Order: sequence, then C-alpha cells, then structure tokens
Amino acid sequence: MCKDLLNKRIYDTQQEMKKNGLEALIIGSSADFSYYFGKHPRPTERFLAIIIPLKGKASLIVPSLDVKNYITYKEEVNIIDWEDSENPIDILVDLLREGDINVIGTNNDLWSVFVYRIKNQNPELVVTEGSSIIARLRLLKTESEINALQKAAEKIDEVWNEFILNTSHIVGKTENQIRAYIMRLMFERGFEEVAWCDVGSGPNSATPLHVGSERKIQKRDPIVIDFAGKYQGYCADTCRTIVAKEPEPEFVKIYELVKNAQKSVTENVREGITCSKLDSIARDIISGENYEEYFIHRTGHGIGLDYHEDPYIVKGNNLKLQTGMVFSNEPGIYIPNLWGVRIEDIIALSQSGIKVLNNTNRELVALP
Amino acid sequence: MCKDLLNKRIYDTQQEMKKNGLEALIIGSSADFSYYFGKHPRPTERFLAIIIPLKGKASLIVPSLDVKNYITYKEEVNIIDWEDSENPIDILVDLLREGDINVIGTNNDLWSVFVYRIKNQNPELVVTEGSSIIARLRLLKTESEINALQKAAEKIDEVWNEFILNTSHIVGKTENQIRAYIMRLMFERGFEEVAWCDVGSGPNSATPLHVGSERKIQKRDPIVIDFAGKYQGYCADTCRTIVAKEPEPEFVKIYELVKNAQKSVTENVREGITCSKLDSIARDIISGENYEEYFIHRTGHGIGLDYHEDPYIVKGNNLKLQTGMVFSNEPGIYIPNLWGVRIEDIIALSQSGIKVLNNTNRELVALP
Repeated sequence: MCKDLLNKRIYDTQQEMKKNGLEALIIGSSADFSYYFGKHPRPTERFLAIIIPLKGKASLIVPSLDVKNYITYKEEVNIIDWEDSENPIDILVDLLREGDINVIGTNNDLWSVFVYRIKNQNPELVVTEGSSIIARLRLLKTESEINALQKAAEKIDEVWNEFILNTSHIVGKTENQIRAYIMRLMFERGFEEVAWCDVGSGPNSATPLHVGSERKIQKRDPIVIDFAGKYQGYCADTCRTIVAKEPEPEFVKIYELVKNAQKSVTENVREGITCSKLDSIARDIISGENYEEYFIHRTGHGIGLDYHEDPYIVKGNNLKLQTGMVFSNEPGIYIPNLWGVRIEDIIALSQSGIKVLNNTNRELVALP
Repeated sequence: MCKDLLNKRIYDTQQEMKKNGLEALIIGSSADFSYYFGKHPRPTERFLAIIIPLKGKASLIVPSLDVKNYITYKEEVNIIDWEDSENPIDILVDLLREGDINVIGTNNDLWSVFVYRIKNQNPELVVTEGSSIIARLRLLKTESEINALQKAAEKIDEVWNEFILNTSHIVGKTENQIRAYIMRLMFERGFEEVAWCDVGSGPNSATPLHVGSERKIQKRDPIVIDFAGKYQGYCADTCRTIVAKEPEPEFVKIYELVKNAQKSVTENVREGITCSKLDSIARDIISGENYEEYFIHRTGHGIGLDYHEDPYIVKGNNLKLQTGMVFSNEPGIYIPNLWGVRIEDIIALSQSGIKVLNNTNRELVALP
C-alpha cells in the first residue's frame, strides 16, 4: 500500500466518522483492513487491528511476530506490538481510555470474542457496527480499482479458457478432480488466494453451494462451476455451467432461460436504476416461464476488496446504481435432485461506461 | 457427519451448558460448527447457525440456497431456511423469544455484526462467549479423531517429501513459485482446503508470518516453509527450514539450536506437565545460547477441527497435558533482516502413547 493512499483513506474515514457519532473504529484483519494496508491476513486468535480515532493519528495493534510486515508505516500509524504472553485487549482498552473514547465501531466480521473481551474490560464502552462507514467509501471504486478488478477478471477468464482447452474429456472425472485442477490453474496464474471452487454435477448442480465430491461425471450431466480468488488484492468471481457430452433438450431450455435473464440484466445496467429493479429483471424473465420458485437466490453482490460487499442486487434494496459500483450478475435455476444452471459475470460502472469484466463463452459448452 | 455422533455431540454440549448458565448456544460457520456437521463453510454475510438450547431439539437456521446440504439431518435438528430477501436475525430472535431464552453464547469467531443485530432486535438478551463450552469437548480428542489427525499429518508429510524429491534446483526460483507448487501438491493429494503456505527466504525468513513474494532464492538463503490444510475435516500443519546450496556456518549454529529445542520439547511431552512448563523447555535451551530475544512466539498451539485451538503451549498457561490432547511443537529463532529458523511437528497424547504425527527429515536439507 502506498503511504499517501493510506493517509488519504484514514482521512476519508475520519470525515465519514464525523457524520456517524463514532469516536473510533477498530478494524481487525478483513477486507476493511486491506482497504488501509493492502493485505488481509487470515484472521486468528492473535488480535491485529487498526484503531482510527475521530481525529489524529491512527494506531496499529499487531502481534510481535508480524510487526515487520507493518514497520514501513511507522510514520503513518503508531505501531504497538504485543508478545504471545501478553493480552492485546488490555492494550486496546488502555489506548481507548487514554483517548477518552467511549463509542467505538468495528468491522462486521471482527470475531465476536474480541467484542466480549473489550466489553468485559470496560462495560461502559459502547461497541457497535463500524463497517458501514468504510462500506460507503468502498462502494464507489476509483478507476484504478476498476482496472484492478478488470485485471483479476481477465486472469480468472484465462483460467476458465485454459480449463476448457485442456479438458479433452470430462465423463468419468470426479467433481473433486475438476476442482483441484481449476484451483491449481488459479495459483499458477498468480492468484494469491483461492476463495472457493465449487463444482456441482448432475443432481449436485441443483445445490448452489455444493462444494464438490467424489461423484463421477456422467453423460448428459450439467456441471455448475463457480470459482473465485484474489489477484493483487482484488477479487475475481465467475460461474459457468457446462454439460458432459450432450445436453437433455429440457436442460437446454432452462439454460437458455438463465442465459437470457443474465443478458437482460447486463443490458439494463445504467446509472439510477435500483438494485431491486435490476434483480426483478432477471426474476421476471424466469417467472415468465414459471421457474420463479427455482431461482432461489439474489441476482448479485458487489465485489472489490471482498468477494461479497455492497451493492447487493436483491429485492428490497432501493440503492441506485452509480458510477464506481461493481457487482456480479448471476441468476440461476435449480430443479431439486435434477439440474442447476448459473451464469455469472462481474459488471462495472466505470467513468468510461459500463463494462462487463468477464468475457468467456456464455453459450452452452459440451465437453466430451 | 454420522447422525448418532451429531446427537451425542449436541447432548454432550447440553450437559456442559448446565455448568455454565447459558440458555442457548448460537454456533455460526466455524470449526465449532464442523464439530456438529462435519463441515465448515466459508463464513459470509448469509447467516448460518445451529442453535442449541439447554434442553430439547436444536435448530439450524440456514440460507435456502444451502438447505439441501443439511436436509439429511431433519430428524436431528429443526431446519429453518430463509430466502435472500428475508432477515435471518428476525427469525433467530423470534426463536429465542419463543423458547424464553435470555442468555446466549456464541462461537468465538461469529461475526460481531450478527451480535450487534441480535442485540438491536432484543437489547435485553445477554450475549457472551460460548466457544469455551465446545472447546472443553474438543480439547480431548477420541482415538478416531487422533487417527484422522495422523492421516492428515501423513498426507502433508507426503507433500513435503514430494516437494523435496521433485525440486532439482531452488536457486533462482521465487518464493511465490515454491508456494504455488506446494499448494498444488496439497490439492492433488486430496486436501480440501489449503489454509496457508508461507514461504520466507533470506531476510524474509526472519518474519514468521511472511506469506511469500517475488523475491528470488539466492545461494546460502535459509527458506522457512510453513504450510497447513484440511484433510477430511481435520487440520495438518507443519514447518521445515531448508537452505539453498550450502549454509553459512553461523546459520547452522542456530538451526541446530532450534532443532535441539524442538527435540527436547518432544522428549518432555507427558501427562501432567503444564503447557507453560513445556514452553519453557524450548525457551531455556534457546536462551542458554543467548538467543531468547529472537524466539518471538509461543512454542505451540492445539490442532484438530481448527488450525489453532486449545491447548496453547505458552508461558502462563497452567493447563496440564492429558491423553487426548494434540498440539504443535514449533520453536523458532528470527534474527531481524538476516535469518529465521522454525521446525514444526504435531504431537498427540493418544491412549497408546505419545505420537509425533509428522515425521519428515528434521536435519538441515540443502537444495541445489
């Protein structure tokens, strides 16, 4: 992370905090944390957090064994390190007391145990949601962030194209074999993290969050493959549905329906449309053919430093799309115990227009 | 997860809860969750949790798009699914009200945002730490759990041996290339998750949590490689330090010191010794040569369904070792900007004696 950008983001956060009444933000390792430091270490029982007060210099409480990864920011933040035999919550609570700070917000995904321990040390402290402040800042991406998301999407598309090109036969392979191969390609292409690679074949394709299994692919199986990873700090996430050998005619019908719903969403992305309205575009097309009950999730989610973030493309969300927003478009149909289809691309409203960041084949591909 | 085991674990949890005053446990996706259902889905903004009351049947609140993964347990737990356009916290708070439940505990790593939202809906509810109840149950592993950990350790050892065997030269490779190769081997060997593969070479080896970089390996570099993953639900975690071409004589000195400290810890593992005492065995050997200030972390951590769990082998922890405990033994020395060494094995106190689960070469290996 460049130091000027860290300073700017801390400053912007403090400006947002003024509107909210929080006296400090406590941001543990998370996508919010990576907004400041450009990295998101795996959260563990070792407390690591940036503390941003309403005014003045921020502090970083960091395990001693990790302090070298942050020492470059010693001018920008007060660095306080702690040893394994010390209690970092004591350090945090003392820091808040010294600053006369009584109302704090945390990142959404801070482990609740830290909140309980903070409250145990100082029951008077008000501890509440803080991510919404950073979410407002993260919601509208800069052009350089959109470029980073574009690059991550191009990399994940390369993985998909390589998978299709190199898979001379798929019948007889297990879901887990496909999963392992795609994850390997992701690491080889430079992804620093693979968040998931869910492979559901045949009846398993009807379960959107089916991770994978030892089930062997059979002729006529649809295979839903949803995979996501982080490339140079930004997230990529895509999904395609393919078929083994040749599809059942009935399956082609639902595939085309999802494809048309997804296409229609893309065509309707524009500034000012609400997230709820965009969701209804996909839903209306699918319910036009009486498959509404099988479209069991929202149409999409925002993406950036995190895989899922604002804006959510879901019924009831009246947020209007604006330049800088980036989100997935991923309608699906799932007929229990039979079939599933999902097609997912990331869409960005950039200053130079609306961009679809993923561009692999959306027609139904049959692999031998 | 076998249904009888799910029933037994819910029952055991309820017995533990009686000692504690909690009226229900809310366990979101986590290692604690996998204690009941044998899986640990990636936690997201979609609320998923088992609710275990003091008496009677447990409930599972689950996103609709995931319900098929749990429907097999519909006799064992009440399954309540929710759509993306619904609010699962309303469902949870109503459920607690109906059960006249006023004091709940959560898993340590439940996202704090869920706690804030629960409290917003019902400020009278007392919400506190709940993991300690499950931690007591998870602390003492059964023989079949120790066997599962043994298998995971054997698999990670196979990965290490294959890495050493297949690496004909290491000078000129980047840390990230080594990292990608080991992660690929892990997936190919059947790990369902790679939690980390940290590769630190040369001066980067002196930072215990250095993830990896584009730095190229140079002659005489030490390389600390720490990697961990999940195999059939149980965690493996190991670390070895190797050297490129040939070591500096001074480096050999600290390598041997860490090796001896690690060996001495292994030899001193026995029922009744405290975690603190075990930590001091490594620390005393290292401080005997005046390197104490460079041993900047605890000697070890428990391992099981989670990578880090009780018992922690750390100063001040007066817990005594007992049959059923499984933990890492991983002393290290880190000379800033110069060198690092860490050697890590998992040790189990099984009913048939003390077992070192990792058994790859602990002598200093030099790769060309």
